[in-house]
Amino acid sequence: MAENRPITVALLGAGTVGSSVASLLAENSEDFAQRIGAPVHLTGVAVRDAGRARPGLDPSLLTDDVLGLAASGADVVVEVMGGIEPARTAILAAMAAGSSVVTANKALLAEDGASLYRAAAEHGVDLYFEASVAGAIPLLRPLRESLAGDRVLSVMGIVNGTTNFMLTKMDEAGADYDDVFAEAEALGYLEADPTLDVGGHDAAAKAAILAELAFHTRVTIDDVHVEGITDVTAEDMRAARAMGFVIKLVAVAERVGEGIVVRVHPAMIPRDHPLASVRGAFNAVFVEAEAAGEMMFYGRGAGGNPTASAVLGDVVAAARNRRAGGLGPGESTYLNLPILDIGSAHTRYYVNLDVADRPGVLASIANAFAEHGVSIQVVRQDGHGAEAGLIVRTHRASDAALQATVQSLRELDTVKRVVGVMRVEGEAGD
Amino acid sequence: MAENRPITVALLGAGTVGSSVASLLAENSEDFAQRIGAPVHLTGVAVRDAGRARPGLDPSLLTDDVLGLAASGADVVVEVMGGIEPARTAILAAMAAGSSVVTANKALLAEDGASLYRAAAEHGVDLYFEASVAGAIPLLRPLRESLAGDRVLSVMGIVNGTTNFMLTKMDEAGADYDDVFAEAEALGYLEADPTLDVGGHDAAAKAAILAELAFHTRVTIDDVHVEGITDVTAEDMRAARAMGFVIKLVAVAERVGEGIVVRVHPAMIPRDHPLASVRGAFNAVFVEAEAAGEMMFYGRGAGGNPTASAVLGDVVAAARNRRAGGLGPGESTYLNLPILDIGSAHTRYYVNLDVADRPGVLASIANAFAEHGVSIQVVRQDGHGAEAGLIVRTHRASDAALQATVQSLRELDTVKRVVGVMRVEGEAGD
Repeated sequence: MAENRPITVALLGAGTVGSSVASLLAENSEDFAQRIGAPVHLTGVAVRDAGRARPGLDPSLLTDDVLGLAASGADVVVEVMGGIEPARTAILAAMAAGSSVVTANKALLAEDGASLYRAAAEHGVDLYFEASVAGAIPLLRPLRESLAGDRVLSVMGIVNGTTNFMLTKMDEAGADYDDVFAEAEALGYLEADPTLDVGGHDAAAKAAILAELAFHTRVTIDDVHVEGITDVTAEDMRAARAMGFVIKLVAVAERVGEGIVVRVHPAMIPRDHPLASVRGAFNAVFVEAEAAGEMMFYGRGAGGNPTASAVLGDVVAAARNRRAGGLGPGESTYLNLPILDIGSAHTRYYVNLDVADRPGVLASIANAFAEHGVSIQVVRQDGHGAEAGLIVRTHRASDAALQATVQSLRELDTVKRVVGVMRVEGEAGD
Repeated sequence: MAENRPITVALLGAGTVGSSVASLLAENSEDFAQRIGAPVHLTGVAVRDAGRARPGLDPSLLTDDVLGLAASGADVVVEVMGGIEPARTAILAAMAAGSSVVTANKALLAEDGASLYRAAAEHGVDLYFEASVAGAIPLLRPLRESLAGDRVLSVMGIVNGTTNFMLTKMDEAGADYDDVFAEAEALGYLEADPTLDVGGHDAAAKAAILAELAFHTRVTIDDVHVEGITDVTAEDMRAARAMGFVIKLVAVAERVGEGIVVRVHPAMIPRDHPLASVRGAFNAVFVEAEAAGEMMFYGRGAGGNPTASAVLGDVVAAARNRRAGGLGPGESTYLNLPILDIGSAHTRYYVNLDVADRPGVLASIANAFAEHGVSIQVVRQDGHGAEAGLIVRTHRASDAALQATVQSLRELDTVKRVVGVMRVEGEAGD
């Protein structure tokens, strides 16, 4: 390749992220040329409506022919349209034309990453997707490359900024779920379909991507157990606070025996855990590896410029590989560990009960835990008389045993109501 | 290259890190083979005394001929001996023989990284050194690669675990410097020459490496302003705590105007800053970039297995490049920004004074700050009568102006003694 032939980049999508990518490419063109060893030339920007003027974008670059631009043979095709189609078809067309692909498309990767990897291998091109999880935080490159000489044991992250904003408000201001939902909506933080955020589905897509890289096992969003934050109450928050915990929506991928479990749900986390101090729209991912021990990666999980930063880091990597004649890491799913269901997870529960106020109540409740082999860590009595309440925190047990215990509790006549049940994560020991 | 020709690795050094590298390579050989696409074959281990048996190491691999093994033409030479020589000669010999090099040698990189980069470029081989800063934390790869599409504004890190252990003890247990020094010594945490830790020189070497990557500018340890923790007192700790701060030894590299400043010194950090909660022997580095915003990387900064994890990640990267025919990122010092002295840094000061208890004292002190253009943020009066004390925290100003202010304070007859002076970092605003 001639020393100074420009690296050509085609951009699919000009929303928040796409616009940032285009403007940063223009503003920092000198830096890109130095870092890559050749100038970067933006060859086109595919948009839905090429007639609409976009500030800062040369109108002659705009096209509504997504597939045409994707297949134009640029060195690097950047896909930031989102959604499954036409993104998938465009990416496959780009690879067939010999282009390396950089994408931020978590939904597509979590649904059908395998097709993209397969096409990349077939055509000898790169597939990079740092921006698909936790926006600006360099996370996937460390997992794919820095930890390539280690064995990951677990990944636990706060990977959805909107729900973390909401839970932070509920924790710090004592606000109700409905109020913080309305506030997030007013601020434009929620996806067009808000269940993607509050139902945990956005976090689940990211959990699938993280799990695949961490465990060298193909994982799709359908493999992820998902519970959202819609049932988290101000009372749960208060109870968590009283015990020295905070409630976060966590995405967990972990080895369990010879398999893995991937799950997204609200969880109580001790306030001195590094993830507990991740406030507002920030994201963070806590990784535990066999040799490296505990690590955390923290930063902005969304937004035009932060996401564009991650996209452009990948563009530089793909461009350098073009010039050096090499390739970045491809798919690495050689282990293909069995994906176990949520019942196999090992975790702890917090259980909040309204109970009858009479002798023998605690004995009957303790018995329900013991029957399922679940060991109690702490019991706290709350209130008196007709209002008697009991809060139980368990030691570690299988999620199946914990669920069965809660079912038994519901059937006890000493238990008037199961007020709240939540998993507890991030505590040391059993 | 034949599909399954083994990747050969020569290991220079079998101390704590080298032994971990060798045993992890053996234990996880299946994983390495899968991740690289070819088995890894350890061809030799260079040690000072080849006659001494080392548990877990095949005696037939041991040699005391460091340079011979270095120049043996292995695909990857791993240098974990430390020190300047014979490490430098060995690395240059390895590169001349066509080997890619993975090193954890912060001292050599901070003193003469340029020679290593130059030799790597000349011979078309890789130079990776993730383990040289912050042990297991994937940090250099994110800086070199993930942020390659962004502009770093500042890097601030806790990169020396021993001093962080000592400062954490002083903060949490109210211990004196001498006591925590003795404890660190008893635990074997201190380097053979303890001034490398407590004098800040180990942190300075890491600061130079971080600054070079962050600012695309050649930085050596001689460019770093260094102050250690030997003057930090239990009283400073108490004062910091009373103001809601904690004292950490920070390594800072930052853009200042058209240049950069690189400095290592104790600093007060607000307790709600992410770095404040980095306790004990953990390391963390806080990075601010133009597009990505704020990020933090957190994990174990030292120890055999954590450091070996970083080394082996680099071995996998170098091995993959060998197989794909590409090269990792080389030196990127195209900016070569001027390195400014500490007086040009913009920071805040905490100043603790014993003052005369008479009218006009505060006015004379306020005047000393104003004369040097330093604006006061908070003044707090402590004690009464003969024991009158005054604590001042400033707004941001040049370090030169702050130093000149302290000099003026020392000369005031209303100031009996300057009890403590420390920089304050990590506060928002001016």
